[in-house]
Amino acid sequence: MTEKMIPDIVIGRLPVYLRALQRMVQEGRQVTSSQELGERLGISAAQIRKDLSQFGEFGKQGTGYQIDYLVDQIREILNVNQVWEIAVIGAGDIGSAVARYGGFANRGFAVRMIFDNNPEAIGKLVGSFTVQETAVMVPAIQQAGIQIAMIAVPANQAQEVADKLVEAGVKAILNYAPLSLNVPEDVHVQYIDPVIHLQRMTYYLE
Amino acid sequence: MTEKMIPDIVIGRLPVYLRALQRMVQEGRQVTSSQELGERLGISAAQIRKDLSQFGEFGKQGTGYQIDYLVDQIREILNVNQVWEIAVIGAGDIGSAVARYGGFANRGFAVRMIFDNNPEAIGKLVGSFTVQETAVMVPAIQQAGIQIAMIAVPANQAQEVADKLVEAGVKAILNYAPLSLNVPEDVHVQYIDPVIHLQRMTYYLE
Repeated sequence: MTEKMIPDIVIGRLPVYLRALQRMVQEGRQVTSSQELGERLGISAAQIRKDLSQFGEFGKQGTGYQIDYLVDQIREILNVNQVWEIAVIGAGDIGSAVARYGGFANRGFAVRMIFDNNPEAIGKLVGSFTVQETAVMVPAIQQAGIQIAMIAVPANQAQEVADKLVEAGVKAILNYAPLSLNVPEDVHVQYIDPVIHLQRMTYYLE
Repeated sequence: MTEKMIPDIVIGRLPVYLRALQRMVQEGRQVTSSQELGERLGISAAQIRKDLSQFGEFGKQGTGYQIDYLVDQIREILNVNQVWEIAVIGAGDIGSAVARYGGFANRGFAVRMIFDNNPEAIGKLVGSFTVQETAVMVPAIQQAGIQIAMIAVPANQAQEVADKLVEAGVKAILNYAPLSLNVPEDVHVQYIDPVIHLQRMTYYLE
Protein backbone atom coordinates (compact mmCIF):
# COMPACT_ATOMS: atom_id res chain seq x y z
CA MET A 1 0.00 0.00 0.00
CA THR A 2 3.01 2.32 0.26
CA GLU A 3 2.80 2.89 -3.51
CA LYS A 4 -0.47 4.71 -2.98
CA MET A 5 1.41 7.48 -1.16
CA ILE A 6 3.38 8.45 -4.27
CA PRO A 7 2.33 11.90 -5.53
CA ASP A 8 -0.10 11.81 -8.45
CA ILE A 9 2.20 14.11 -10.43
CA VAL A 10 4.85 11.36 -10.37
CA ILE A 11 2.26 8.80 -11.48
CA GLY A 12 1.36 11.20 -14.28
CA ARG A 13 4.92 11.13 -15.64
CA LEU A 14 5.23 7.33 -15.72
CA PRO A 15 3.02 6.92 -18.82
CA VAL A 16 5.21 9.48 -20.63
CA TYR A 17 8.34 7.52 -19.71
CA LEU A 18 6.65 4.30 -20.79
CA ARG A 19 5.66 5.75 -24.16
CA ALA A 20 9.22 6.90 -24.87
CA LEU A 21 10.67 3.56 -23.76
CA GLN A 22 8.23 1.60 -25.94
CA ARG A 23 9.27 3.79 -28.84
CA MET A 24 12.90 2.88 -28.17
CA VAL A 25 11.91 -0.80 -28.25
CA GLN A 26 10.35 -0.22 -31.69
CA GLU A 27 13.62 1.36 -32.75
CA GLY A 28 15.42 -1.83 -31.77
CA ARG A 29 17.17 -0.27 -28.79
CA GLN A 30 18.10 -2.36 -25.73
CA VAL A 31 19.71 -0.02 -23.20
CA THR A 32 19.10 3.63 -22.31
CA SER A 33 20.01 6.13 -19.63
CA SER A 34 18.14 8.74 -17.63
CA GLN A 35 20.17 11.32 -19.60
CA GLU A 36 18.97 10.06 -22.97
CA LEU A 37 15.41 9.62 -21.81
CA GLY A 38 15.49 13.12 -20.33
CA GLU A 39 16.72 14.65 -23.57
CA ARG A 40 13.94 12.97 -25.53
CA LEU A 41 11.32 14.20 -23.10
CA GLY A 42 12.61 17.60 -22.07
CA ILE A 43 12.76 16.41 -18.45
CA SER A 44 15.91 16.42 -16.33
CA ALA A 45 17.76 13.13 -15.84
CA ALA A 46 17.67 13.74 -12.08
CA GLN A 47 13.87 14.01 -12.15
CA ILE A 48 13.56 10.73 -14.01
CA ARG A 49 15.92 8.93 -11.63
CA LYS A 50 14.06 10.35 -8.65
CA ASP A 51 10.66 9.36 -10.03
CA LEU A 52 11.73 5.81 -10.85
CA SER A 53 13.54 5.34 -7.52
CA GLN A 54 10.18 5.67 -5.76
CA PHE A 55 9.25 2.27 -7.16
CA GLY A 56 12.54 0.38 -6.82
CA GLU A 57 15.95 -0.03 -8.40
CA PHE A 58 15.59 -0.39 -12.16
CA GLY A 59 19.08 0.43 -13.41
CA LYS A 60 22.69 -0.03 -12.39
CA GLN A 61 25.01 2.91 -11.85
CA GLY A 62 27.02 3.34 -15.04
CA THR A 63 25.23 0.76 -17.17
CA GLY A 64 21.85 2.46 -17.56
CA TYR A 65 18.45 0.82 -17.89
CA GLN A 66 17.58 -2.41 -19.72
CA ILE A 67 14.68 -1.02 -21.74
CA ASP A 68 12.63 -4.24 -21.94
CA TYR A 69 12.87 -4.73 -18.21
CA LEU A 70 11.98 -1.13 -17.41
CA VAL A 71 9.00 -1.29 -19.79
CA ASP A 72 7.74 -4.42 -18.03
CA GLN A 73 8.17 -2.85 -14.61
CA ILE A 74 6.37 0.39 -15.47
CA ARG A 75 3.56 -1.54 -17.16
CA GLU A 76 3.15 -3.52 -13.97
CA ILE A 77 3.18 -0.40 -11.79
CA LEU A 78 0.55 1.25 -13.98
CA ASN A 79 -1.52 -1.96 -14.17
CA VAL A 80 -1.30 -1.99 -17.97
CA ASN A 81 0.30 -5.43 -18.19
CA GLN A 82 -3.26 -6.46 -19.07
CA VAL A 83 -5.92 -5.14 -21.44
CA TRP A 84 -8.60 -2.89 -19.97
CA GLU A 85 -11.85 -2.75 -21.90
CA ILE A 86 -13.41 0.63 -22.51
CA ALA A 87 -16.94 1.85 -23.15
CA VAL A 88 -17.25 4.96 -25.32
CA ILE A 89 -20.29 7.16 -24.78
CA GLY A 90 -21.10 9.39 -27.74
CA ALA A 91 -20.74 8.36 -31.38
CA GLY A 92 -20.19 11.81 -32.84
CA ASP A 93 -16.96 12.97 -34.46
CA ILE A 94 -14.81 12.63 -31.37
CA GLY A 95 -16.35 9.45 -29.96
CA SER A 96 -16.10 7.80 -33.36
CA ALA A 97 -12.48 8.88 -33.82
CA VAL A 98 -11.61 7.48 -30.39
CA ALA A 99 -13.47 4.22 -31.01
CA ARG A 100 -11.54 3.71 -34.24
CA TYR A 101 -8.20 4.89 -32.80
CA GLY A 102 -5.44 2.38 -33.46
CA GLY A 103 -3.18 3.75 -30.74
CA PHE A 104 -4.63 1.72 -27.85
CA ALA A 105 -3.15 -1.59 -28.99
CA ASN A 106 -0.14 -2.70 -26.92
CA ARG A 107 -0.70 0.13 -24.48
CA GLY A 108 -3.20 -1.64 -22.24
CA PHE A 109 -6.61 -0.71 -23.66
CA ALA A 110 -9.26 -1.87 -26.09
CA VAL A 111 -12.54 -0.20 -26.91
CA ARG A 112 -15.28 -2.76 -26.37
CA MET A 113 -18.59 -0.91 -26.90
CA ILE A 114 -20.00 2.45 -27.98
CA PHE A 115 -23.28 4.14 -27.12
CA ASP A 116 -25.31 7.11 -28.32
CA ASN A 117 -28.80 8.46 -27.67
CA ASN A 118 -29.28 9.83 -31.19
CA PRO A 119 -31.69 7.58 -33.16
CA GLU A 120 -29.72 8.33 -36.33
CA ALA A 121 -26.50 7.01 -34.76
CA ILE A 122 -27.92 3.91 -33.05
CA GLY A 123 -27.30 0.75 -35.06
CA LYS A 124 -24.60 2.28 -37.22
CA LEU A 125 -21.13 0.79 -37.46
CA VAL A 126 -18.22 2.74 -35.97
CA GLY A 127 -15.07 0.83 -36.77
CA SER A 128 -16.08 -2.71 -35.84
CA PHE A 129 -18.68 -1.67 -33.27
CA THR A 130 -22.42 -1.26 -33.65
CA VAL A 131 -23.60 1.85 -31.82
CA GLN A 132 -25.95 0.81 -29.02
CA GLU A 133 -28.63 2.99 -27.46
CA THR A 134 -27.72 4.74 -24.22
CA ALA A 135 -30.75 3.14 -22.53
CA VAL A 136 -28.91 -0.22 -22.39
CA MET A 137 -25.60 1.33 -21.27
CA VAL A 138 -25.79 0.59 -17.54
CA PRO A 139 -26.64 -3.12 -17.80
CA ALA A 140 -24.25 -3.64 -20.72
CA ILE A 141 -21.32 -2.13 -18.84
CA GLN A 142 -22.21 -4.01 -15.66
CA GLN A 143 -22.50 -7.33 -17.48
CA ALA A 144 -19.12 -6.83 -19.18
CA GLY A 145 -17.52 -5.71 -15.92
CA ILE A 146 -16.10 -2.62 -17.62
CA GLN A 147 -14.40 -0.15 -15.28
CA ILE A 148 -13.26 2.51 -17.76
CA ALA A 149 -15.35 4.79 -19.95
CA MET A 150 -14.81 7.76 -22.23
CA ILE A 151 -17.42 10.50 -22.40
CA ALA A 152 -17.71 12.21 -25.78
CA VAL A 153 -21.18 13.73 -25.58
CA PRO A 154 -22.24 17.41 -25.60
CA ALA A 155 -21.39 19.29 -22.41
CA ASN A 156 -25.01 19.56 -21.31
CA GLN A 157 -25.41 15.75 -21.29
CA ALA A 158 -22.05 14.84 -19.77
CA GLN A 159 -22.93 14.97 -16.06
CA GLU A 160 -26.00 12.79 -16.58
CA VAL A 161 -23.90 10.26 -18.49
CA ALA A 162 -21.24 10.35 -15.76
CA ASP A 163 -23.89 9.63 -13.11
CA LYS A 164 -25.05 6.57 -15.06
CA LEU A 165 -21.49 5.36 -15.55
CA VAL A 166 -20.91 5.57 -11.80
CA GLU A 167 -24.13 3.62 -11.28
CA ALA A 168 -22.78 0.99 -13.69
CA GLY A 169 -19.63 0.56 -11.64
CA VAL A 170 -17.20 2.55 -13.78
CA LYS A 171 -14.17 3.70 -11.77
CA ALA A 172 -12.24 5.74 -14.34
CA ILE A 173 -13.63 8.29 -16.80
CA LEU A 174 -11.81 10.08 -19.58
CA ASN A 175 -14.00 13.09 -20.28
CA TYR A 176 -13.88 14.82 -23.69
CA ALA A 177 -16.85 17.05 -22.87
CA PRO A 178 -15.71 20.57 -21.98
CA LEU A 179 -16.82 20.72 -18.37
CA SER A 180 -15.78 19.45 -14.94
CA LEU A 181 -17.69 16.41 -13.67
CA ASN A 182 -18.88 15.68 -10.15
CA VAL A 183 -18.23 12.06 -9.21
CA PRO A 184 -17.73 10.11 -5.97
CA GLU A 185 -14.21 10.13 -4.48
CA ASP A 186 -13.41 6.59 -5.58
CA VAL A 187 -14.03 7.43 -9.25
CA HIS A 188 -11.11 8.92 -11.19
CA VAL A 189 -11.62 11.49 -13.93
CA GLN A 190 -9.17 12.82 -16.47
CA TYR A 191 -10.00 15.55 -18.98
CA ILE A 192 -9.21 16.13 -22.63
CA ASP A 193 -10.23 19.58 -23.81
CA PRO A 194 -8.05 21.02 -26.56
CA VAL A 195 -9.05 24.58 -25.65
CA ILE A 196 -7.64 24.18 -22.13
CA HIS A 197 -4.28 23.21 -23.64
CA LEU A 198 -4.40 25.99 -26.23
CA GLN A 199 -5.22 28.68 -23.67
CA ARG A 200 -2.34 27.52 -21.53
CA MET A 201 -0.05 28.31 -24.47
CA THR A 202 -1.58 31.61 -25.65
CA TYR A 203 -0.67 33.08 -22.27
CA TYR A 204 2.93 32.99 -23.47
CA LEU A 205 2.30 34.26 -27.01
CA GLU A 206 2.57 37.86 -28.15
CA MET B 1 6.91 41.21 -17.31
CA THR B 2 6.22 40.09 -13.74
CA GLU B 3 3.35 37.95 -15.01
CA LYS B 4 5.89 35.75 -16.75
CA MET B 5 7.22 34.65 -13.36
CA ILE B 6 3.93 33.00 -12.41
CA PRO B 7 4.31 29.20 -12.25
CA ASP B 8 3.05 27.38 -15.33
CA ILE B 9 0.89 25.15 -13.12
CA VAL B 10 -1.10 28.25 -12.07
CA ILE B 11 -1.43 29.30 -15.72
CA GLY B 12 -2.69 25.77 -16.41
CA ARG B 13 -5.57 26.18 -13.96
CA LEU B 14 -6.80 29.52 -15.35
CA PRO B 15 -8.41 27.95 -18.45
CA VAL B 16 -10.30 25.55 -16.17
CA TYR B 17 -11.58 28.45 -14.08
CA LEU B 18 -12.51 30.33 -17.26
CA ARG B 19 -14.44 27.35 -18.64
CA ALA B 20 -16.46 27.00 -15.42
CA LEU B 21 -17.14 30.75 -15.27
CA GLN B 22 -18.28 30.86 -18.90
CA ARG B 23 -20.61 27.99 -18.11
CA MET B 24 -22.06 30.02 -15.23
CA VAL B 25 -22.64 32.90 -17.67
CA GLN B 26 -24.57 30.50 -19.92
CA GLU B 27 -26.63 29.54 -16.89
CA GLY B 28 -27.54 33.21 -16.41
CA ARG B 29 -25.50 33.59 -13.24
CA GLN B 30 -23.96 36.96 -12.30
CA VAL B 31 -22.00 36.46 -9.07
CA THR B 32 -20.01 33.54 -7.71
CA SER B 33 -17.56 32.78 -4.91
CA SER B 34 -14.29 30.90 -4.65
CA GLN B 35 -16.22 28.35 -2.56
CA GLU B 36 -18.79 27.67 -5.27
CA LEU B 37 -16.19 27.62 -8.02
CA GLY B 38 -14.07 25.26 -5.95
CA GLU B 39 -16.96 22.88 -5.39
CA ARG B 40 -17.69 22.74 -9.11
CA LEU B 41 -14.06 22.03 -9.92
CA GLY B 42 -12.94 19.88 -7.01
CA ILE B 43 -10.31 22.50 -6.13
CA SER B 44 -10.08 24.24 -2.76
CA ALA B 45 -11.45 27.77 -2.45
CA ALA B 46 -8.11 28.84 -0.96
CA GLN B 47 -6.24 27.58 -4.04
CA ILE B 48 -8.53 29.52 -6.36
CA ARG B 49 -8.16 32.73 -4.33
CA LYS B 50 -4.39 32.31 -4.23
CA ASP B 51 -4.15 31.66 -7.97
CA LEU B 52 -6.31 34.65 -8.89
CA SER B 53 -4.55 36.96 -6.43
CA GLN B 54 -1.36 36.56 -8.47
CA PHE B 55 -2.99 38.64 -11.18
CA GLY B 56 -4.80 41.28 -9.14
CA GLU B 57 -7.89 41.86 -7.05
CA PHE B 58 -10.93 40.44 -8.80
CA GLY B 59 -13.45 40.12 -5.98
CA LYS B 60 -14.47 41.92 -2.82
CA GLN B 61 -14.38 40.25 0.58
CA GLY B 62 -17.88 39.02 1.33
CA THR B 63 -19.49 39.84 -2.02
CA GLY B 64 -17.69 37.33 -4.25
CA TYR B 65 -16.76 37.70 -7.90
CA GLN B 66 -18.70 39.47 -10.64
CA ILE B 67 -18.62 36.63 -13.18
CA ASP B 68 -18.64 38.78 -16.33
CA TYR B 69 -15.78 40.88 -15.03
CA LEU B 70 -13.71 37.88 -13.96
CA VAL B 71 -14.30 36.20 -17.34
CA ASP B 72 -13.05 39.33 -19.11
CA GLN B 73 -10.00 39.56 -16.90
CA ILE B 74 -8.98 35.91 -17.32
CA ARG B 75 -9.54 36.11 -21.07
CA GLU B 76 -7.19 39.09 -21.14
CA ILE B 77 -4.57 37.33 -19.01
CA LEU B 78 -4.68 34.26 -21.26
CA ASN B 79 -4.69 36.40 -24.43
CA VAL B 80 -7.95 34.86 -25.59
CA ASN B 81 -9.83 38.16 -25.80
CA GLN B 82 -9.10 37.73 -29.52
CA VAL B 83 -9.45 34.88 -32.00
CA TRP B 84 -6.31 32.83 -32.76
CA GLU B 85 -6.30 31.04 -36.08
CA ILE B 86 -5.16 27.44 -36.13
CA ALA B 87 -3.66 25.19 -38.79
CA VAL B 88 -4.49 21.48 -38.46
CA ILE B 89 -1.99 19.00 -39.88
CA GLY B 90 -3.46 15.59 -40.61
CA ALA B 91 -6.94 15.01 -42.03
CA GLY B 92 -7.50 11.54 -40.59
CA ASP B 93 -10.11 10.71 -37.96
CA ILE B 94 -8.65 12.91 -35.24
CA GLY B 95 -7.59 15.85 -37.43
CA SER B 96 -11.00 15.88 -39.10
CA ALA B 97 -12.84 15.71 -35.78
CA VAL B 98 -10.77 18.61 -34.46
CA ALA B 99 -11.25 20.67 -37.63
CA ARG B 100 -15.03 20.23 -37.36
CA TYR B 101 -15.13 20.71 -33.58
CA GLY B 102 -17.68 23.33 -32.57
CA GLY B 103 -16.14 23.93 -29.17
CA PHE B 104 -13.58 26.54 -30.23
CA ALA B 105 -16.14 29.29 -30.82
CA ASN B 106 -16.18 31.93 -28.07
CA ARG B 107 -13.13 30.39 -26.47
CA GLY B 108 -10.51 32.22 -28.52
CA PHE B 109 -9.78 29.91 -31.44
CA ALA B 110 -10.82 29.16 -35.01
CA VAL B 111 -9.47 26.50 -37.32
CA ARG B 112 -8.36 28.22 -40.53
CA MET B 113 -6.71 25.51 -42.67
CA ILE B 114 -6.04 21.77 -42.77
CA PHE B 115 -3.26 19.81 -44.49
CA ASP B 116 -2.50 16.19 -45.31
CA ASN B 117 0.10 14.37 -47.41
CA ASN B 118 -2.23 11.55 -48.46
CA PRO B 119 -3.30 12.01 -52.13
CA GLU B 120 -6.70 10.52 -51.25
CA ALA B 121 -7.30 13.18 -48.60
CA ILE B 122 -6.01 16.22 -50.52
CA GLY B 123 -8.83 18.24 -52.05
CA LYS B 124 -11.54 16.70 -49.89
CA LEU B 125 -13.80 18.81 -47.73
CA VAL B 126 -13.47 18.55 -43.95
CA GLY B 127 -16.16 20.70 -42.41
CA SER B 128 -15.85 23.88 -44.47
CA PHE B 129 -12.15 23.40 -45.28
CA THR B 130 -10.56 21.88 -48.37
CA VAL B 131 -7.64 19.68 -47.37
CA GLN B 132 -4.42 21.16 -48.79
CA GLU B 133 -1.26 19.24 -49.55
CA THR B 134 1.45 19.37 -46.91
CA ALA B 135 3.91 20.67 -49.52
CA VAL B 136 2.26 24.11 -49.38
CA MET B 137 1.98 24.13 -45.59
CA VAL B 138 4.97 26.32 -44.74
CA PRO B 139 4.19 29.20 -47.15
CA ALA B 140 0.45 29.02 -46.40
CA ILE B 141 1.01 29.29 -42.63
CA GLN B 142 3.58 32.06 -43.09
CA GLN B 143 1.32 34.05 -45.37
CA ALA B 144 -1.60 33.78 -42.96
CA GLY B 145 0.64 34.65 -40.00
CA ILE B 146 -0.64 31.63 -38.09
CA GLN B 147 1.14 30.95 -34.78
CA ILE B 148 -0.78 27.90 -33.55
CA ALA B 149 -0.98 24.44 -35.08
CA MET B 150 -2.35 21.03 -34.16
CA ILE B 151 -0.49 17.91 -35.21
CA ALA B 152 -2.72 14.89 -35.90
CA VAL B 153 -0.46 12.75 -38.06
CA PRO B 154 1.00 9.28 -37.37
CA ALA B 155 3.76 9.26 -34.74
CA ASN B 156 6.51 8.53 -37.26
CA GLN B 157 5.70 11.74 -39.22
CA ALA B 158 5.08 14.06 -36.28
CA GLN B 159 8.64 15.32 -35.67
CA GLU B 160 9.12 16.16 -39.34
CA VAL B 161 5.83 18.08 -39.35
CA ALA B 162 6.84 19.88 -36.15
CA ASP B 163 10.15 20.95 -37.74
CA LYS B 164 8.26 22.43 -40.71
CA LEU B 165 5.81 24.21 -38.42
CA VAL B 166 8.70 25.80 -36.54
CA GLU B 167 10.19 26.85 -39.87
CA ALA B 168 6.82 28.43 -40.74
CA GLY B 169 6.88 30.51 -37.56
CA VAL B 170 4.45 28.52 -35.43
CA LYS B 171 4.96 29.21 -31.72
CA ALA B 172 2.43 26.85 -30.12
CA ILE B 173 1.74 23.23 -31.05
CA LEU B 174 -1.00 20.97 -29.73
CA ASN B 175 0.29 17.49 -30.50
CA TYR B 176 -2.16 14.57 -30.84
CA ALA B 177 0.56 12.20 -32.07
CA PRO B 178 1.69 9.85 -29.30
CA LEU B 179 5.29 10.98 -28.89
CA SER B 180 7.29 13.82 -27.39
CA LEU B 181 8.48 16.49 -29.84
CA ASN B 182 11.78 18.31 -29.92
CA VAL B 183 11.28 22.01 -30.62
CA PRO B 184 13.21 25.23 -29.89
CA GLU B 185 12.76 26.78 -26.45
CA ASP B 186 10.51 29.57 -27.69
CA VAL B 187 7.97 27.10 -29.12
CA HIS B 188 5.34 25.76 -26.73
CA VAL B 189 4.00 22.23 -27.00
CA GLN B 190 1.04 20.63 -25.29
CA TYR B 191 0.09 16.99 -25.67
CA ILE B 192 -3.18 15.13 -26.04
CA ASP B 193 -2.77 11.36 -25.82
CA PRO B 194 -5.74 9.52 -24.34
CA VAL B 195 -3.54 6.57 -23.33
CA ILE B 196 -1.40 8.80 -21.10
CA HIS B 197 -4.55 9.88 -19.24
CA LEU B 198 -5.92 6.34 -19.05
CA GLN B 199 -2.67 4.89 -17.68
CA ARG B 200 -2.60 7.58 -15.03
CA MET B 201 -5.95 6.25 -13.81
CA THR B 202 -5.32 2.49 -14.08
CA TYR B 203 -2.55 2.92 -11.52
CA TYR B 204 -5.32 3.42 -8.98
CA LEU B 205 -7.63 0.64 -10.17
CA GLU B 206 -7.74 -2.88 -8.78
